[in-house]
Amino acid sequence: MLDIAKPSVLLMGNETDPIYAKTGLGIAHWDATNCVGQIRFTPETVDVGLPDVTLGEALQRGAKTVVLGVVVIGGSIPPATLTILRQALELGLDIAAGMHQRLGDIPELQEAAQKSGRRIIDVRVPPEEIPVGTGKKRTGKRLLTMGTDCALGKKYTSLALAQEMSHQGFDVDFRASGQTGILISGAGIPIDAVVADFISGAAEMLSPDAGSPDHWDVIEGQGSLFHPGYSAVTAGLLTGSQPDAFVVCTHATREHMAGWPDFPLPSIGEVIELTVLMAQRVNPAIRCLGISSNTSGLAPEERAPYLEGLAQRWSMPAVDPLHGGVEPLVSALTTW
Amino acid sequence: MLDIAKPSVLLMGNETDPIYAKTGLGIAHWDATNCVGQIRFTPETVDVGLPDVTLGEALQRGAKTVVLGVVVIGGSIPPATLTILRQALELGLDIAAGMHQRLGDIPELQEAAQKSGRRIIDVRVPPEEIPVGTGKKRTGKRLLTMGTDCALGKKYTSLALAQEMSHQGFDVDFRASGQTGILISGAGIPIDAVVADFISGAAEMLSPDAGSPDHWDVIEGQGSLFHPGYSAVTAGLLTGSQPDAFVVCTHATREHMAGWPDFPLPSIGEVIELTVLMAQRVNPAIRCLGISSNTSGLAPEERAPYLEGLAQRWSMPAVDPLHGGVEPLVSALTTW
Repeated sequence: MLDIAKPSVLLMGNETDPIYAKTGLGIAHWDATNCVGQIRFTPETVDVGLPDVTLGEALQRGAKTVVLGVVVIGGSIPPATLTILRQALELGLDIAAGMHQRLGDIPELQEAAQKSGRRIIDVRVPPEEIPVGTGKKRTGKRLLTMGTDCALGKKYTSLALAQEMSHQGFDVDFRASGQTGILISGAGIPIDAVVADFISGAAEMLSPDAGSPDHWDVIEGQGSLFHPGYSAVTAGLLTGSQPDAFVVCTHATREHMAGWPDFPLPSIGEVIELTVLMAQRVNPAIRCLGISSNTSGLAPEERAPYLEGLAQRWSMPAVDPLHGGVEPLVSALTTW
Repeated sequence: MLDIAKPSVLLMGNETDPIYAKTGLGIAHWDATNCVGQIRFTPETVDVGLPDVTLGEALQRGAKTVVLGVVVIGGSIPPATLTILRQALELGLDIAAGMHQRLGDIPELQEAAQKSGRRIIDVRVPPEEIPVGTGKKRTGKRLLTMGTDCALGKKYTSLALAQEMSHQGFDVDFRASGQTGILISGAGIPIDAVVADFISGAAEMLSPDAGSPDHWDVIEGQGSLFHPGYSAVTAGLLTGSQPDAFVVCTHATREHMAGWPDFPLPSIGEVIELTVLMAQRVNPAIRCLGISSNTSGLAPEERAPYLEGLAQRWSMPAVDPLHGGVEPLVSALTTW
């Protein structure tokens, strides 16, 4: 499994658009205590709210990894950014990124890494030796987020659940299945990049035997079982995760799958039915814990009544992690 | 999509065990008219029932591809076999194989292929440019075999269906999703080797727009939606295939999944329910056509009553392709 040495420093370069700085913003939001600062080239660069540092200062503060907090879409990495990455390797730090374009394919960085013996961590690359899924029961409990669609809050919900569970005294780990989640948590497997025969095996690796029966893994979900493009990712992750509990993540106002205008969002009930039917052979105890809905499209005064309506309709907690938090879901878990 | 030039000649080498000669036996059984003969080194070599030829004779008879009809498990390809493969490339033929070990990784063959401009076709390697599945409706009709488990007759059932449909005047193509099926039919995509994000996209490529509304693709199924190791392969193939009809393939006497002793075989009803629930968004018209059961473990006199019982229980045709053929399934298709 991928494993990023902490603490890290976030390299934000000269990116001024928050859209392309989501990785850095996410890491600063969820894992600030493991970040020594941010490296920004200009005052206009997106500010993630961490102390501004130079590479040398980051090293003095104990940084072990430079994480690229921005994505470069089509085109090459700016020279100043590349220079920092090379210098980081030369100074004995690892470097990590989650782009499609691999840092490990850049000769200048390859050479620096070979000389210093440090690692280039491209988190979209899965581990090499993944076994076929066994279906064997592991100790500990597991929670998986299941979506009605992509890109509506499964990662955020999972991170919020793990954080709130930790606050309430649960023994809990967040398990990242996508590149941003991996950079935030420092470990994980990019499930969508695994070869078909090994997807559920990768999910088993991601959430191994916990040792303790009371330990919880909160596993970041991917895609949707109903998705025309990504159903296989979701199916393999579900089978290998063997969840005891799942949370349906949906969107209050999205009418069709993002990017697939001919596909209406499935209902919460359809997701519950299909998830239980598919997963009950690997875990007969699987149950739906509740609903997490993205209410960003609702007016502020509409949110509470909407969530209340969902909770009554489904007889389970319904939350928006960004508006009110996930405490009702975690309370329901205490008796799981 | 992989595409093997026909006719071919089967290279059986000196393999004496039919278990390791299944590929050659399958090709000779299903596609004898496209084979000019077999190359056997010894009288004890498995005989697939085709004329014995030398490589030179195969060339005279118009062979375009040498297909390796045996598998080599752990260890290297015997020198005599390797020599024939190299000579085939030098004489202007393609070579093809379905082993994990890739012919394309052998320097001697690489060099010969480069010199002659011929192809080394390793059918376990998927095409490079597979798009994400779109979920868009294509013309033509599609039938997919769905299993209660692996290795119980999905490929055989699909090939038998395509053959019988062709005999009855259907406009039909068999679509291979695994290496043996690809070598038999000369084309296809090894779905189990495709990266997670692209599995349903690969299934869409495998069964493209047919042009005619009456054309049928019979798509070779893989794994089982309930399989602890391979559920993702099955899910992606189902989503991308958008089948109008599916046949549940099961086994009359197998009690647990092959190699997974803790997992009882799911029932036929469970497979029908989960298949329809998962696929109805990509094709609301999906229905189960019937059942194909492997009755090899039953006494001959038990087979007909067993299949009759299944047919009555499920109100649909139930066949064993090896004992009685698939005609009842094809008859039911005429009114689809």
